[in-house]
Amino acid sequence: MKPLWIKHAAQLVSLSGENAPRIKEQMSDLAIIEDGSVWIENGEIIAVGTTDELEKSFSSRSQEADVVDATGRLVTPGLVDPHTHVAFGGSREREFEMRLEGATYMDIMNAGGGIHATTRMTREATEDELVAQTTKRLDSFFQHGVTTVEGKSGYGLDLETELKQLRVMKRLNELHPIDLVPTFMGAHAVPQEYKGNEEAYIDVVVNEILPVVAEEKLAIFNDVFCEKGVFTPAQSERILEAGKKLGLVPKIHADEIESYGGAELAAKVGAISAEHLLKASDEGIKQMAEAGVIACLLPATALYLREEAAKGRQMVDAGVAVAISTDCNPGSSPTTSMPLVMNLACISMRLTPAEALVAATINAACAIQMEDRVGSLEVGKQGDIVLWNVASYQELQYLFGVNHVGVVWKKGERVVG
Amino acid sequence: MKPLWIKHAAQLVSLSGENAPRIKEQMSDLAIIEDGSVWIENGEIIAVGTTDELEKSFSSRSQEADVVDATGRLVTPGLVDPHTHVAFGGSREREFEMRLEGATYMDIMNAGGGIHATTRMTREATEDELVAQTTKRLDSFFQHGVTTVEGKSGYGLDLETELKQLRVMKRLNELHPIDLVPTFMGAHAVPQEYKGNEEAYIDVVVNEILPVVAEEKLAIFNDVFCEKGVFTPAQSERILEAGKKLGLVPKIHADEIESYGGAELAAKVGAISAEHLLKASDEGIKQMAEAGVIACLLPATALYLREEAAKGRQMVDAGVAVAISTDCNPGSSPTTSMPLVMNLACISMRLTPAEALVAATINAACAIQMEDRVGSLEVGKQGDIVLWNVASYQELQYLFGVNHVGVVWKKGERVVG
Ligand SMILES: [Zn+2]
Ligand SMILES: [Zn+2]
Repeated sequence: MKPLWIKHAAQLVSLSGENAPRIKEQMSDLAIIEDGSVWIENGEIIAVGTTDELEKSFSSRSQEADVVDATGRLVTPGLVDPHTHVAFGGSREREFEMRLEGATYMDIMNAGGGIHATTRMTREATEDELVAQTTKRLDSFFQHGVTTVEGKSGYGLDLETELKQLRVMKRLNELHPIDLVPTFMGAHAVPQEYKGNEEAYIDVVVNEILPVVAEEKLAIFNDVFCEKGVFTPAQSERILEAGKKLGLVPKIHADEIESYGGAELAAKVGAISAEHLLKASDEGIKQMAEAGVIACLLPATALYLREEAAKGRQMVDAGVAVAISTDCNPGSSPTTSMPLVMNLACISMRLTPAEALVAATINAACAIQMEDRVGSLEVGKQGDIVLWNVASYQELQYLFGVNHVGVVWKKGERVVG
Repeated sequence: MKPLWIKHAAQLVSLSGENAPRIKEQMSDLAIIEDGSVWIENGEIIAVGTTDELEKSFSSRSQEADVVDATGRLVTPGLVDPHTHVAFGGSREREFEMRLEGATYMDIMNAGGGIHATTRMTREATEDELVAQTTKRLDSFFQHGVTTVEGKSGYGLDLETELKQLRVMKRLNELHPIDLVPTFMGAHAVPQEYKGNEEAYIDVVVNEILPVVAEEKLAIFNDVFCEKGVFTPAQSERILEAGKKLGLVPKIHADEIESYGGAELAAKVGAISAEHLLKASDEGIKQMAEAGVIACLLPATALYLREEAAKGRQMVDAGVAVAISTDCNPGSSPTTSMPLVMNLACISMRLTPAEALVAATINAACAIQMEDRVGSLEVGKQGDIVLWNVASYQELQYLFGVNHVGVVWKKGERVVG
C-alpha cells in the first residue's frame, strides 16, 4: 500500500494531548493545526503537523505517496460510535408506519412487532444472513465517517443466539475493514419465555452464557438494561459483577425512562460507561464524574422517541466525560448517522461544536477502550481519517442534517469517496 | 439527449390522479406501481406503468435509451422544497458556536450577528458572489433529491438589494438545471434604519419595491412575516393586498412564535400557503381548510430552535393540505436536507410515511403553483426523478437521518449519482 499524504487542511483536528477521556474545558480543545498535514504509512500515522513541517521530512518522498490536497477543507479523526446494536436480523419499517397510522402498542405486539420481533428474526437468521445484513449497516457507517463501531448482542436472549450474534461480530471484524468492538448484552430484555421468572433468566446469563462468552473471548464488555420493568439495580449489579470476575468490563443502560439509580450503580460497579441517562439524577451525575464513568449519550434515540434529550451540557459542566452515539438499532434508533448525532448533541443537548466532535472521537474511543489506536490524529495511531466537504468544525455542526463526509480512510486505505 | 428508461422499480411512487393538492386520505394514496417503469424523452415523461406494460411499447427502442435497472429500489418524483431563503450572502456558523458557548442574544447582536448580519452580508455581496454561494446550496439540494426549490428575497430590505436577490434567482433559474421559483419578501423584517417607523418601510415596500418587482416579473409570490414585533396582521394584509393588485400571489409566515391570527389572515386574503404555523389556532386551521390554504410546515426549523413542531397530524385530519420544507436559511434552519424534513414530519408531526412523501412532492408543488410540471410521475410532466437506495417509501422514513438518494434526474438528465 502506498503511503498517504493529506496536506493543506484548512483545519486539521488532531486532538493530540494527554487527556483521554477529555473532561470540562479539555472538551473544547481540539488541538487544531491550520494548513495541517498528516502522513500515513502501513496504515499508521507517522507524522502530523503543519504542511510546512511535513514538507521538510517528506517532500522527497511525495512521488511514492498518494497525495491528497485538502485545501479549504476540514480533516478529523475517523468518528467512533461507542454504542450500537448493529448485528440484528430483519427490519421493522412496517411497524413504524403502523404506529403512525394509529396502531397501539398492543396492536403492534399482536402483529408480532416490538423487540420480540427482532429477537425472533435474529434467532431465525443464519450466521451468514446476519453477516450480510450487518455488512450493509457497517458500510453505511463508513459513509457517515465512522471507522470504529461498538456492537452489542442482546437480540438472542438465549445461549445459542447470543453466541451467534457475537460470532457474527467477530467474523465481521475480520471480514470488514471497520473496527467492530463486541459487547455481550444477554441482559438486554427478559425473554418472553421467562416473563415473571426473571431470576431464572439471570441465572442462565450468569451461569451459562457469560462463562462461554468469556472463555471464547467473544466480548470485551458486559452490558445490562437497568430499567424499571426490565432489570433492577440489584439484578443489574449481580450480572455486571459476574462479568467482572470473568474479565468483562461493565457498561450499563441507565436511567433512560425513569430515574432508577442507574447512574449511581455505574459509579458503584466502576462501569467504563453509562448509556442513555435521560433521567439521571444530579447525585448520579456527580458520582459518575467522581468515579470517572463516561456518559454515552444518544440524542438521536431521544429525538426518535420524542423524549427530552439527556442533560449533556450539565454533565460536561459537572466534569463527566461525555461521548455520543447513534444507538443504531431497529426499534428506537434505526440510523447510522453520527454526523446527525453530533448536530443533535449541539441542538438538543447544548454541547458546543468542539465538544460534540470530542464526544464523537476521543471520548467515544475511551468508552470502548480503543483510545490507544483511534480517536485522534497522533503518531502511532491508526490512519483512520475523514476529509469533510466543509471548511471548519463549526460548519460541520451548523449546516445540520447533511452528511458532509467527503473521503474516508481506514488504516490509510480509502474506503469512501 | 438519449431517452431514459427506468425499469423494475420495487415501488414506483407515481402519485397520479386528479387531486392536487391532496387532503385527508388522499394524502395516503401514493398510487404505487410495483415493478414500475417510466420512459422519459426530451426531458418529459412519455409513459409510466408496470415494466411489462412499457416493454410492449418500448422494448424495440431500448437500444437507443439509457436503461436503468431499479430492481429492489424505490423510485419517486423529484422532491419539491416550497419555502427557502436560499439566495443569501455569508454564513453564520461562528454565531451558532458563540450561542452554544453561552453568548446571549445581545452578545450576538453586539458582535454584528443575527438576521441583520445576513442583511449586511447580502447587501455587500455582488450579484456574482450571490450566484456562486447560492449555486453551492442548489447543488446540495440536488444531492438530497430536491429538483424544484422556491426562494425568497428578504435579506435586502431595500429596493436595490431586494431586486438584486430576485435577479440572482432569475439568473440561477437559467444557469442551474434546478427549477427555482421566486418569491418577493421585502417584508421579511423591519430594517434597522426603519426601527420604530415600520409604516414608512411598508410604504417603501408597497409603493416603491412591489411595483418594480411586478413590472420586471421578478416574482410569482409575495410573502410577509406576520408576527408580534415584526408586521401586524393589518400591516401584513396591506402588503399582501397590494401585491395581489399587481398579480402577485400571497404567502404568509404565520403564527410561528405566537398565535397571532396569521392562519386566519391567510384564509382571509386567499393565500396559496401559510408557513410555519407552530402556534396556529384551531379556528385558524379550520379556516385554512375551508379556504384551501396549503400549510407549509417546517419541522427542521422547529428542531433547530428547540420548539414543538407544528400540529401536522391535526392539520391533515382537519382537511388542510400539508406541504413540508427545509426553510433553508442561515439563522433558523441552515440545512438543505428534505429527506431529514420528511423524517421529522413523521417523528415530530406524526404524519405517516406516505403523507410525508406527498407533503414533499405533489402538495409542495401545489404550494408554488408548479403542479402542472412537477410533483408526480405522470405523462406530460417533467422527468424529475429520484432513485433511492432503499426498497420502499416506508424504509425511506424509517431509516432516519440518512440521505438515501441514489440517482437524481432533472428533466431526464442525470444530475446526481
Ligand atoms: Zn442500547
Ligand atoms: Zn421563511
